[in-house]
Amino acid sequence: MLRRKDLLGIRDLSVNEIMTILQTAESMKGIVTGEATKLDVLKGKSAVTLFYENSTRTRMAFTMAGTYLGAHVADLGVASSSVQKGESLVDTGITLDSMGIDYMIMRHGMSGAAHLLAKNVKASVINAGDGANEHPTQALLDFYTIYEKKGGFKNLKVTIVGDIAHSRVARSNVFGLTQLGAQVTLAGPGTLTAKSMEKLGCTVVTDVKAAVKDADIVMALRIQLERQKGGLFPNLREYSQIYGLNKEIFEYAKPDALLMHPAPVNRGVELTPELMDSKVSVIDEQVTNGVAVRMAILALLQEGRENA
Amino acid sequence: MLRRKDLLGIRDLSVNEIMTILQTAESMKGIVTGEATKLDVLKGKSAVTLFYENSTRTRMAFTMAGTYLGAHVADLGVASSSVQKGESLVDTGITLDSMGIDYMIMRHGMSGAAHLLAKNVKASVINAGDGANEHPTQALLDFYTIYEKKGGFKNLKVTIVGDIAHSRVARSNVFGLTQLGAQVTLAGPGTLTAKSMEKLGCTVVTDVKAAVKDADIVMALRIQLERQKGGLFPNLREYSQIYGLNKEIFEYAKPDALLMHPAPVNRGVELTPELMDSKVSVIDEQVTNGVAVRMAILALLQEGRENA
Amino acid sequence: MLRRKDLLGIRDLSVNEIMTILQTAESMKGIVTGEATKLDVLKGKSAVTLFYENSTRTRMAFTMAGTYLGAHVADLGVASSSVQKGESLVDTGITLDSMGIDYMIMRHGMSGAAHLLAKNVKASVINAGDGANEHPTQALLDFYTIYEKKGGFKNLKVTIVGDIAHSRVARSNVFGLTQLGAQVTLAGPGTLTAKSMEKLGCTVVTDVKAAVKDADIVMALRIQLERQKGGLFPNLREYSQIYGLNKEIFEYAKPDALLMHPAPVNRGVELTPELMDSKVSVIDEQVTNGVAVRMAILALLQEGRENA
Repeated sequence: MLRRKDLLGIRDLSVNEIMTILQTAESMKGIVTGEATKLDVLKGKSAVTLFYENSTRTRMAFTMAGTYLGAHVADLGVASSSVQKGESLVDTGITLDSMGIDYMIMRHGMSGAAHLLAKNVKASVINAGDGANEHPTQALLDFYTIYEKKGGFKNLKVTIVGDIAHSRVARSNVFGLTQLGAQVTLAGPGTLTAKSMEKLGCTVVTDVKAAVKDADIVMALRIQLERQKGGLFPNLREYSQIYGLNKEIFEYAKPDALLMHPAPVNRGVELTPELMDSKVSVIDEQVTNGVAVRMAILALLQEGRENA
Repeated sequence: MLRRKDLLGIRDLSVNEIMTILQTAESMKGIVTGEATKLDVLKGKSAVTLFYENSTRTRMAFTMAGTYLGAHVADLGVASSSVQKGESLVDTGITLDSMGIDYMIMRHGMSGAAHLLAKNVKASVINAGDGANEHPTQALLDFYTIYEKKGGFKNLKVTIVGDIAHSRVARSNVFGLTQLGAQVTLAGPGTLTAKSMEKLGCTVVTDVKAAVKDADIVMALRIQLERQKGGLFPNLREYSQIYGLNKEIFEYAKPDALLMHPAPVNRGVELTPELMDSKVSVIDEQVTNGVAVRMAILALLQEGRENA
Repeated sequence: MLRRKDLLGIRDLSVNEIMTILQTAESMKGIVTGEATKLDVLKGKSAVTLFYENSTRTRMAFTMAGTYLGAHVADLGVASSSVQKGESLVDTGITLDSMGIDYMIMRHGMSGAAHLLAKNVKASVINAGDGANEHPTQALLDFYTIYEKKGGFKNLKVTIVGDIAHSRVARSNVFGLTQLGAQVTLAGPGTLTAKSMEKLGCTVVTDVKAAVKDADIVMALRIQLERQKGGLFPNLREYSQIYGLNKEIFEYAKPDALLMHPAPVNRGVELTPELMDSKVSVIDEQVTNGVAVRMAILALLQEGRENA
């Protein structure tokens, strides 16, 4: 059970809460892979996805997670609808609350949007990404994948490569992994501006090879092509040459190192196809784990709601 | 039970039918607020929303209403799809009929569109707004809110303020409230053209203060920003100064008067935020009642279908 | 039961398999018309519609088919989403596979797209139209309609009129009907280029009257207005004059001949309204049969999956 109404960020979660989510995800995974039968712990409950930024993939993962637990999941279709114009976020939330919606799953371009919504509604709010702040369910699926493959976090070296300075995935991962006992190293074009993240307990380096050296986990971030206008790099080819991961660079990692990526991968940019399709990659399994983790969150929040 | 295939307008409904809907809505409300468990009176039934004009909010209210009763509700996505081009409304309806759809919930820019559809399909058609003609489910939720708060309609003064000349919400409300025994007063920029509505048994005045005086219910209409191009007013500020409601104007109403609005409110235009967020407002409760009323309509039409 | 993972084209199917689908569709039809109660043979199973080309009608038929069998059907909204940009078809498929989706129903502009997807995923893939190649579920609903109305295929003359050279519907029909023992005649503006289809065992003629003469079934194809830019005909009026079907031309067919069309009809182009709305037309019944056939395919594939 999670004794909280909402899941807004990794920063708010205790190690205990994170471990509860990961262990519950473990018991959910068989449902996603078809080895176990679906549950109905959310039967009669309604969830709505409110994606102010498009993400078919994350939205679908939440939809399946809710569905596998017996909930009804509707998409408000915000990114393409008229809701975006005119009506305020809080008014939209209060409306959905008044309709009896139990879960609001929101992605928004503004940092803190999920917190604002959560404060104003009775429904449980799950943050599916808020600006450059946090993307807690992505981080939790990353944690679950590491936990499943490595059995724990203590003394693991986790290296994150990419546009770390603007990445909510990087931020959520750093918040959690440092708490869980891993050593986190960041490298990427935002190195200079990201230096301040060292205050969170991680190491920020400029050289990718140094970062990858002896890593247990190498996580490449997705480059946000749509945010690259006037960005750090003149072109993708240059990014790929300096920060793209390939088999040669991956040799610097530990022999049993794993490759992760939040997907979808820009093939040939963040990762060479050769590396991405090799056996070190757990990227497809991250997708499965992403549904399991979201099922865990929904089930644990529901348990909390019923006990409140 | 409603002994009719379709719900197309308030004008067609008898007082008896309206009261049956309101009393059924009363028994449904606990389901929306989560105090009662969902029903399955529409289990195995299929509804489709056909919105030729976008309205995420009304569409979602119908979707939840159907879902709470066990129906499967699909959105045809008309406003954004290729259906709008080429295929005629009747051909679309016959196709859905042939697929075994039980309920078609339609919003359309053309007055009479729902009637045309209803005549050509076996499914039950619910009018979710047709041009400047009617918006019966909005009016029914307004009636239910008044009935719930005031216990009836006799001798109540209901004042409607806004673009009354072009409002299907105003028309449906006038048709019903006059029948139910309330005294309806209209005021707004369309006063001159709306003068002919007095034939329906209401009073049309020019002065907002006079209209609000001694009112039991003050209902502000939503200004249709998208229809204001070359409209009655040069700008919203001017509209707001003359027809916007605030605490001072509301003082003219009875001490226990209630404020209603079909929502979403254009904050600062139709209503000052101060008035909207004060305790006289029942706007959020109207949203809850909107789901309950639509559940009632679906359940009563279904009962009628099963007895036919 | 179908002993195959996917349904990709009529070309792959044996006569036995086709007849199994038609006979199963027969037992499903009462569910679509509301005379029989829904089944739950797909309870707990998930389907996704991936339509890279818009088709609200076909997508809805699949959605209802899955729903009537108890499956959860989600639309990936590809045509309007960001999936289309960037991510490869195979990567999208692997992602959905990793989420535990059981059925992927895909329409794509590229011939062979469904085969490519099927080879890379564990889910069952149903081809809902791939470029100019095949549209097997449309052909199967055509076969079922003929089978239902005529009791079989032997020695029936089936005439297909329209843009035969570019029609996946014509191709799938020819593949199946020739195998089932019908005599297929094609006529239309693509006659010259379509002459090579005679290798498949049908007859290609230039004159529409000659084609319709003594036909048991006359099937008009839908003209793809959106593909007519710089197409075979300068304008629709000219097409309609030469290849449009009307009551006079239909007189050449057998007295009990039936009119079919994959719909939606461009009224006045492929068919005169008079012919279309006359009693020879089984177009609306094709829609009902389309849901029944898709239910049959889903149920038979599911049986195969459970026995594999």
